[in-house]
Amino acid sequence: MVRRLLDAPVPRAALKPCATPVILGRIAYVSDFDVLVMGSGPGGQRAAIAAAKLGRKVAVVERRDMIGGVCINTGTIPSKTLREAVMYLTGMNQREMYGSAYRVKEDITPEDLTQRTRHVMSRQIDVIRSQLSRNHIPLLPGIGRFADPHTVHIDDGSDQERVVHAKKIIIATGTKPARPSSVEFDERTIIDSDGILQLQELPQSMVVVGAGVIGIEYASMFAALGTKVTVIERRNEMLEFCDREVVEALKYQLRDLAVTFRFGESVSAVEKYERGAVTILESGKKIPAETVLYSAGRQGLTDRLDLEKAGLTADNRGRIKVDENFCTEVDHIYAVGDVIGFPALAATSMEQGRIAAHHACGEPVHDISKLQPIGIYTIPEISFVGKTEDELTQEKTPFEVGISRYRELARGQIVGDSYGVLKILVNPEDRKVLGVHIFGTQATELVHIGQAVMGCGGTVDYLVDAVFNYPTLAEAYKVAALDATNKIRQLAVLSD
Amino acid sequence: MVRRLLDAPVPRAALKPCATPVILGRIAYVSDFDVLVMGSGPGGQRAAIAAAKLGRKVAVVERRDMIGGVCINTGTIPSKTLREAVMYLTGMNQREMYGSAYRVKEDITPEDLTQRTRHVMSRQIDVIRSQLSRNHIPLLPGIGRFADPHTVHIDDGSDQERVVHAKKIIIATGTKPARPSSVEFDERTIIDSDGILQLQELPQSMVVVGAGVIGIEYASMFAALGTKVTVIERRNEMLEFCDREVVEALKYQLRDLAVTFRFGESVSAVEKYERGAVTILESGKKIPAETVLYSAGRQGLTDRLDLEKAGLTADNRGRIKVDENFCTEVDHIYAVGDVIGFPALAATSMEQGRIAAHHACGEPVHDISKLQPIGIYTIPEISFVGKTEDELTQEKTPFEVGISRYRELARGQIVGDSYGVLKILVNPEDRKVLGVHIFGTQATELVHIGQAVMGCGGTVDYLVDAVFNYPTLAEAYKVAALDATNKIRQLAVLSD
Repeated sequence: MVRRLLDAPVPRAALKPCATPVILGRIAYVSDFDVLVMGSGPGGQRAAIAAAKLGRKVAVVERRDMIGGVCINTGTIPSKTLREAVMYLTGMNQREMYGSAYRVKEDITPEDLTQRTRHVMSRQIDVIRSQLSRNHIPLLPGIGRFADPHTVHIDDGSDQERVVHAKKIIIATGTKPARPSSVEFDERTIIDSDGILQLQELPQSMVVVGAGVIGIEYASMFAALGTKVTVIERRNEMLEFCDREVVEALKYQLRDLAVTFRFGESVSAVEKYERGAVTILESGKKIPAETVLYSAGRQGLTDRLDLEKAGLTADNRGRIKVDENFCTEVDHIYAVGDVIGFPALAATSMEQGRIAAHHACGEPVHDISKLQPIGIYTIPEISFVGKTEDELTQEKTPFEVGISRYRELARGQIVGDSYGVLKILVNPEDRKVLGVHIFGTQATELVHIGQAVMGCGGTVDYLVDAVFNYPTLAEAYKVAALDATNKIRQLAVLSD
Repeated sequence: MVRRLLDAPVPRAALKPCATPVILGRIAYVSDFDVLVMGSGPGGQRAAIAAAKLGRKVAVVERRDMIGGVCINTGTIPSKTLREAVMYLTGMNQREMYGSAYRVKEDITPEDLTQRTRHVMSRQIDVIRSQLSRNHIPLLPGIGRFADPHTVHIDDGSDQERVVHAKKIIIATGTKPARPSSVEFDERTIIDSDGILQLQELPQSMVVVGAGVIGIEYASMFAALGTKVTVIERRNEMLEFCDREVVEALKYQLRDLAVTFRFGESVSAVEKYERGAVTILESGKKIPAETVLYSAGRQGLTDRLDLEKAGLTADNRGRIKVDENFCTEVDHIYAVGDVIGFPALAATSMEQGRIAAHHACGEPVHDISKLQPIGIYTIPEISFVGKTEDELTQEKTPFEVGISRYRELARGQIVGDSYGVLKILVNPEDRKVLGVHIFGTQATELVHIGQAVMGCGGTVDYLVDAVFNYPTLAEAYKVAALDATNKIRQLAVLSD
């Protein structure tokens, strides 16, 4: 009897045992592929599809319960869907219009929030399955580990292992939340970001340890839901790679939602009690809260890969080193996505996957675009592309600033966004756009307009002359561009 | 005693009576300006501000109750705010998630809808007042009419008239709904689009006569609210300037909301009864409805301008003819905005205003951008820029189509948009983007990304290589670009 090993239709060739099957112990089945991708997150998916489109025989290894990776199952998608549900159910955006106490639903339960999340996750998993299947890429269920540089054993929990030989291997296994060994996680009172979706009720109070992107995104969601949030961050600042004014505006808005920030403070202990926990800081402060969310960075998922059998090693955070083509120290093995570290964004991982696949298949590779937008789904959201004011000042590049406030735009008033702001940084000499920084509704979508101008070699004059649909938030570009060019003109007039 | 004639702070010079004041009959006060703008809608505002920024002494004539023009008071802003309230209160976008019967509010009243509208209108009027005031542009209240080509008399309803001499005059008086003389409008049962905001209750049924942009926008809003809508259109099609697939998708979605279309039909009579009206078509069909909305085009507001005293005439729809600089047949008089006819969009009117002001002030004028996006706020919304497939086929320009469906995007699933689609048309030779057509959530914002690529000389390869924030709707560009380039590659492979 042949076990059904594959979830997706498999090209006939892939099912044919290779010429010299290796049958020893638990090994049940052997197959050959041109490219084996370990992990089905954004990087892995994209790598697999790119290689398949180039005519290669490709397979993806993934745990049955993790199709789509962390992105779909515990990370980006659940958190962004949760955010959308929070925005909607709290009526955040409607308060300008219907008063500050306005809520669509008075008692929001985790069930209200996660209903939507489960729905989106299952649809998204369907999409991935169907994309892989359309490209004839079998999904090999289980956890892979190297047996040698070209051989991966896949353990699906049954009593037999699958063995795959592959000419090229792309590691895209992702990360998991890092858990300090001193902290006693219990998935109820003391949790990491993976535990958010399992919360049984919305806490009245919460301590968030770590003001990185994930920590601050969840802090703002719970603050919007009415939870009293305290954010503890070892450093004296947060989101250092963002525009300073934007980060200050975010802190201002979050404080307005009753968030307390403790910068430059470290946690010395967390004491757990029946109905919550007390977080004790090194400065002696004690902070009671129903829930403590640890967001202390992430750890590369490489510990079960037996990397040494492939001739590879990971650093102390489980990350794998790669070159500009995402090739590891072993020629035919690549690594992409969160497992290689910064920036660990889904969008970037996809690009890395595509580039790695093209390089592995001997296709000419475009460099990864230098213009990578950053999107942070706080409430309000943040997005930017290009340089910050600080970076430009440091490298002594003069710039002029153009600003537009949403509240002066008709669409800003229609959507009830009184705090949003779009800022463009312009080189007064060649009038090129050096950076776009947005804080407010639709920031993560709108940034792509400025990015296109920068990426296609346009100048601020394109934005001055362009006709924008009215009423849209995109008009902010025109207002900001006019602001910048007026300032540049004043400079020219005075120095004439 | 000096009457307070001005609403906004006035530069000292403007208040000084001119050297030879003309005092005859009702005339109270005479002043001189470099540029007089008649009308404070988008075109007028932008013209006034542009001239003021060039150092000219500028004034704007407007009725006290029409600051911001039709755009703010009865047109774009109220209708777009109403639409936002409809989208929100009906929970249209949430039905994917919470079931097709989902509604935020069970019994939506006109009060629920217009509360928001009034709020936005009053804020927007404040913004305009403050922009004019910051630029030292007095707002002269009343209705202006020409006394001679350089002189305008302003009647503010009091017993005295104001007289303004101006070197340049810009007419931006806009339009009003055209009312067929055969139809007995009563502002209750038989209304035009100006009457929407005065509706006392939401009709159970409605006939919309005319499937132009305004008619179809309101038809979709009422359909979303649960009104049974019948659209009657003399032509055999609607929105002919849009992509055919998009229009068909719109019709499909509107039919799904119980809209009935009667194309190629004309109204022969409307009979009014106590509780509604019966619309009789020339084909003999009789359609009962609580409300009949006439949307039969618009008429230029020129009848009270005494144009002949300025040496000008209007056509039979009240429109004024202009050249490429928006100059009328009289050298120093310009006309911009809806009063000159097509396209009669706020965004375009602003550009016209800016160009007219620059030309009037002897500044070098950039041509108006050829890339004018069109935004139609139906439900779902439509936006496009560049050419349609039909136009390209007609002019024998070959193109390849790249498509992305929102439901395959993570963000599409998060926002619950299962119908959205983005289409790009690409020249397979030089790989330039020839057109972008979007149907679905945020279409009017997203179109500006493609517009920027087109306007800054980018190609489809920019979109293929660009990194987009994840999860966003903007990713649709990348998916569509990959689709188009894959098709182009197939063509190349076959013909190699």
